[in-house]
Amino acid sequence: MRTVTYFFIFLNLSLAVFEEPAVYPLPFLVTSLVEVLCLLVFFGRLTHFAKVTFRNVFWKDTKNICIMVAILLSLTDLAIYGVLRIYNVSSIRWSRIVRPIFLINFAESRQIRRAFRSIRNTLPEITYVFLLFMFSLLMFSLMALKLFGERNLQTAEGLPYFKNYLGIVFDLYVLVTTANSPDVMMPAFDFSSWYALFFIAFVIVNTYIFMSLFLAVVYNNYKKHLKNEIRKLAYMKHRKMIEAFNLLKEEEGAQFVVREARWKELVKLVAPDISSSHRELLLRISDDEQKGFIDKKSFVQLADLLNIQVVTLKIRSHPLNQWMPRVYKSAVSQFLRSMVRHRGFVWTYDVIILINAVFIALDEASPYISYAEWVFLALYITEILLKVYTYEPRAFFGKNQFWNWFDTLIIFAALTATILNTTLKSTTKYNSQQILDIVFILRVLRLIRIVDSIQRFRVIMNTLINIVPTMLTFGGLTLVVYCVFAIIGMELFHGKIQFFPANSNAPYALECGNPALKDSLFARGKYCKNNFNNFVSSFIVLMELTVVNQWHVFANGFAKVTVQPAKLYFIAFHIVMVIIIVNIFVSFILEAFFVEYSLEKSEVETAIEQKIQELGMGVQEDKLQDEQLLDNMESDEHDLEGEGGTKRQTKGLVFKIASKHPPVHTLVSSQSMKMLLWWLRSCCCQETCLLLFTLLVQDG
Amino acid sequence: MRTVTYFFIFLNLSLAVFEEPAVYPLPFLVTSLVEVLCLLVFFGRLTHFAKVTFRNVFWKDTKNICIMVAILLSLTDLAIYGVLRIYNVSSIRWSRIVRPIFLINFAESRQIRRAFRSIRNTLPEITYVFLLFMFSLLMFSLMALKLFGERNLQTAEGLPYFKNYLGIVFDLYVLVTTANSPDVMMPAFDFSSWYALFFIAFVIVNTYIFMSLFLAVVYNNYKKHLKNEIRKLAYMKHRKMIEAFNLLKEEEGAQFVVREARWKELVKLVAPDISSSHRELLLRISDDEQKGFIDKKSFVQLADLLNIQVVTLKIRSHPLNQWMPRVYKSAVSQFLRSMVRHRGFVWTYDVIILINAVFIALDEASPYISYAEWVFLALYITEILLKVYTYEPRAFFGKNQFWNWFDTLIIFAALTATILNTTLKSTTKYNSQQILDIVFILRVLRLIRIVDSIQRFRVIMNTLINIVPTMLTFGGLTLVVYCVFAIIGMELFHGKIQFFPANSNAPYALECGNPALKDSLFARGKYCKNNFNNFVSSFIVLMELTVVNQWHVFANGFAKVTVQPAKLYFIAFHIVMVIIIVNIFVSFILEAFFVEYSLEKSEVETAIEQKIQELGMGVQEDKLQDEQLLDNMESDEHDLEGEGGTKRQTKGLVFKIASKHPPVHTLVSSQSMKMLLWWLRSCCCQETCLLLFTLLVQDG
Repeated sequence: MRTVTYFFIFLNLSLAVFEEPAVYPLPFLVTSLVEVLCLLVFFGRLTHFAKVTFRNVFWKDTKNICIMVAILLSLTDLAIYGVLRIYNVSSIRWSRIVRPIFLINFAESRQIRRAFRSIRNTLPEITYVFLLFMFSLLMFSLMALKLFGERNLQTAEGLPYFKNYLGIVFDLYVLVTTANSPDVMMPAFDFSSWYALFFIAFVIVNTYIFMSLFLAVVYNNYKKHLKNEIRKLAYMKHRKMIEAFNLLKEEEGAQFVVREARWKELVKLVAPDISSSHRELLLRISDDEQKGFIDKKSFVQLADLLNIQVVTLKIRSHPLNQWMPRVYKSAVSQFLRSMVRHRGFVWTYDVIILINAVFIALDEASPYISYAEWVFLALYITEILLKVYTYEPRAFFGKNQFWNWFDTLIIFAALTATILNTTLKSTTKYNSQQILDIVFILRVLRLIRIVDSIQRFRVIMNTLINIVPTMLTFGGLTLVVYCVFAIIGMELFHGKIQFFPANSNAPYALECGNPALKDSLFARGKYCKNNFNNFVSSFIVLMELTVVNQWHVFANGFAKVTVQPAKLYFIAFHIVMVIIIVNIFVSFILEAFFVEYSLEKSEVETAIEQKIQELGMGVQEDKLQDEQLLDNMESDEHDLEGEGGTKRQTKGLVFKIASKHPPVHTLVSSQSMKMLLWWLRSCCCQETCLLLFTLLVQDG
Repeated sequence: MRTVTYFFIFLNLSLAVFEEPAVYPLPFLVTSLVEVLCLLVFFGRLTHFAKVTFRNVFWKDTKNICIMVAILLSLTDLAIYGVLRIYNVSSIRWSRIVRPIFLINFAESRQIRRAFRSIRNTLPEITYVFLLFMFSLLMFSLMALKLFGERNLQTAEGLPYFKNYLGIVFDLYVLVTTANSPDVMMPAFDFSSWYALFFIAFVIVNTYIFMSLFLAVVYNNYKKHLKNEIRKLAYMKHRKMIEAFNLLKEEEGAQFVVREARWKELVKLVAPDISSSHRELLLRISDDEQKGFIDKKSFVQLADLLNIQVVTLKIRSHPLNQWMPRVYKSAVSQFLRSMVRHRGFVWTYDVIILINAVFIALDEASPYISYAEWVFLALYITEILLKVYTYEPRAFFGKNQFWNWFDTLIIFAALTATILNTTLKSTTKYNSQQILDIVFILRVLRLIRIVDSIQRFRVIMNTLINIVPTMLTFGGLTLVVYCVFAIIGMELFHGKIQFFPANSNAPYALECGNPALKDSLFARGKYCKNNFNNFVSSFIVLMELTVVNQWHVFANGFAKVTVQPAKLYFIAFHIVMVIIIVNIFVSFILEAFFVEYSLEKSEVETAIEQKIQELGMGVQEDKLQDEQLLDNMESDEHDLEGEGGTKRQTKGLVFKIASKHPPVHTLVSSQSMKMLLWWLRSCCCQETCLLLFTLLVQDG
């Protein structure tokens, strides 16, 4: 269901690639039919949603209203445009701007909506800071006009310097973003060294202080907002758990309880994919004294318990050990396996990777080096095979074994691509550039592996990998902003600037096909390909504008080929993207990093771990740190066998707590909120988490 | 004592302005004599310090050792250089680099040292992130070499594109700083749009993620480090207060206490500058039940109590009221005063300021406009006089009345400068440019006042004003780094690049006097004045490098006139200044802002306020918000008079708590630590403060 909705949302968004101005042009009939289809799907999704919710809830929800309005607007626009097209009147497809609304407003994109809500809440405060910043900018501009306006100075391009007030405001705004940093100062500085003080004061006040203030305001509001959201969620969950308890409760002595059988049924229903041993473990924690029932307090904890990922490590012997035990247990095999497990094995491969790096850097032309590539590929494949031979394959390709997956995929992709390339080369003498490029990239990516063998790097890398899902939310946010600005940009600047290949004979090829750009920095920087002529180009231009540098060259260039106020488009993009969204992204990363670095184990987690240890099924955390993970488990198994008794029943089972950051996990329980987890995980600051956690655990 | 030390430290540092390469050259003999004098003073300060501290404490202190080594090094270097100079052998004054050591290591610069300690503690962690970042950079460079190296592409300047590995690493490092953002991508992008993906991936990974990670690591460590420092300070203070209690205690019934008389004596001794009524107030808080003695718990609180700034607002009647009460209380005078107190008065002047802004922007040439300037000056002066007439002058120019001071200073400076300018113009027909510039700046600065009349802006401005002292610490840090890099830079690049005025006939004037710069971006950007030829120029170049934009043009330019490895100097500066120090600065601002925005009144403060209210001497906080402050106080006075009785004794006295952020204040008590306050105030995060505060208040 969700996949289908997302598919149609992205189909609808990607229509911009095929509509005029198109990357791959399709007739209007096709794109409009696809759009109508998408709108129908959205409408269907909405009616379905309306059926499963109460009428007044449905109509009170702004997002449903938004979707309906968007559908109506799109259809109207499509009809008007179609009719006008028949009469050959050109008009604007203005409704394309509303398309991102679908991405935001469907129930599935909770996180993006949350991010937008967070932005909306930040707006009032950021507006005040922004007004103050603008005031400071206008003041400095006035000062600059008075100080430099009558000096008859010239810029490096020979233009008059600081003559016109609005021009000064724009130049100084660009200086705030540091994009024209020394250039704007040089004429005044050349005139007198003292004038440098003006620019130094300007940069300190506006670039350093005000820009940091923006980050502070965004970050502060973001944290505050999040705290409230989490508090609300936690409260809702708690209330629902108590509701559930009241439905299931039975009287037992003086208190109400839930009986074991009913509890098990519930857990099976709610979390069908956890193993029965894991369920047993949870039961033992909830029903600590084995009374056969669970009281209210323990019951309410259930949601938290279920959210802590307990990895059930099934200790299975190696398949080869089962199929041909004689061979697998022979001296040679034993030696081989102990060799692979040795630290030296990792080190050897680290050295091989380093040598490989040198070979990659060397010239490809020499035949020896292309032979060496085969040797390296063989070595890497041998490594993977040896590891699979030594460790249990299902454990080696376990869910959380990111690096093993990464290695294997990269190396087999490289193998395939290299074979393909060689075949093409020898049969058709044609060296496919695309494939060769991919081979190069894969070859270099292999080198990343070396990071994994250094403990400190692995910690940082894991942090980075953990915040990837958070960044996807941010990606969604960026996508929405980019779409809106790209569509506006295409309407404003489409066709004004053209790109011609280097050897083109077109008129004004060097001026991007537009004489207005003669002698401009835009043309001199050979920026012609940065235009708004289609959706993809627009995205790349917007990406460059996000990076900020040289954005004034773009703004000036596009203003020259249209009108001066066109600069406002670029200023607006800077404010929305850089001042607001990039700052939110930085806040994201800061919080994510603080959480990853500082979060301690929560109480519930400790409770589970204690129970695991009590049951003698634990794996020492520190032993898990290095790569000999599976090796250790085998020896653990031996220990268990040796002990016997009641623990026999759990033989071959080892638990370990997977996540280091449960508090946020534990806050949300329903399946539909799972996606939210990542968002929350990376943004809740330590104090909030602990506070909320205590709030949750200490049942009132 | 401190002033003298600082004077000599700055004198010593500023010697760089007069020594070769000099801004204002002085003979070697003069500078060396001054240096010897400075060193003597430092030595004297050190021996004085050695006398008042225990010997083993003195010798264990690294900062004393540092100073001694620095003095020795400076003297040796000076001697060697002097001797070599006599024999006309040129050598390097390498010891100039150690001069900033004096700024760091004297006991007076505690905050700068603390900042350096914080940096040192951050280094190990930042090193790991940096290594990982370098690894990523090298990998991407390798990929770029493979992808673009053999395409025979050309940059916009016609140079080979991505041919040489080290060149690629440098280019991509510059891309991380965004300084060459679209330019470095354009040749590959022009070749194929797909290659944009490589650069987008690069920017996301390195610029957005890694750079944010640097901020996160710096911020995180900074906070952690600070927490420890504050905890240590709080603990030390607590211990000392208990020690003091044990010295002063007497037995009273079952417990030990300090008697009132002794307590008063102590307070008089420790804080001689607080008023006796303030002391009385503190006594009433400490000895809540008026038992005539203070128990241990209340005694330990004393340090905190003393640190809360209680403003004793003495309600004095206006001097004019005392001198000529008839005139001052006449109907006209009453009307005038009520007019000034009216909101409309503020609004009128806001409108006047706006009109003034328009007039400033208009052309100066017209005589009417220069007459208007006199009108505005007269209006502003009238405003100040009216305010002083209405409000009590001593209150109007009170300690915390920043805006009143600002106004008065700016307007009287503008008046002086304008009169001076007009006199010069009429008598000598010579229009002094310097004075005119100052007049312009002062005129524009007057407009800032309008910010003060909008409540929300005032809050933000106050936050900014409050963090100024913190930023001064940061300024010290920057000064040290700049000094070191400027001195190294002058040794490396002195005289390689020269600046010639626009109409110069010197050879290679357009190439900054160096043929190696022909066709370089450096010469084309007219950056010739950005050189290391003297101390001041070096500072300006370093400032531009801190702003980051175009730093690669500088690096390439200076590498062209010397050798390629000279780029390392610029990379080193970027790492030290931008990655470490600017991030610390941003952390500063973030924390300062969070504290200013979120700190609630502390417990001790609440206790004091409660007592003030109990005694009926309070001023309503909300009434204080607007400008009618002194007006209200007058009416409060009337209320007090009306009540009479015991409150008579406090007539004419109103207390109000000045600071909104006492917790950090309360942590430090000794006079010598006062400077530290500001540092702490702006960096302690809310949670830490509250935690520590509880720790302090709840006496064990």
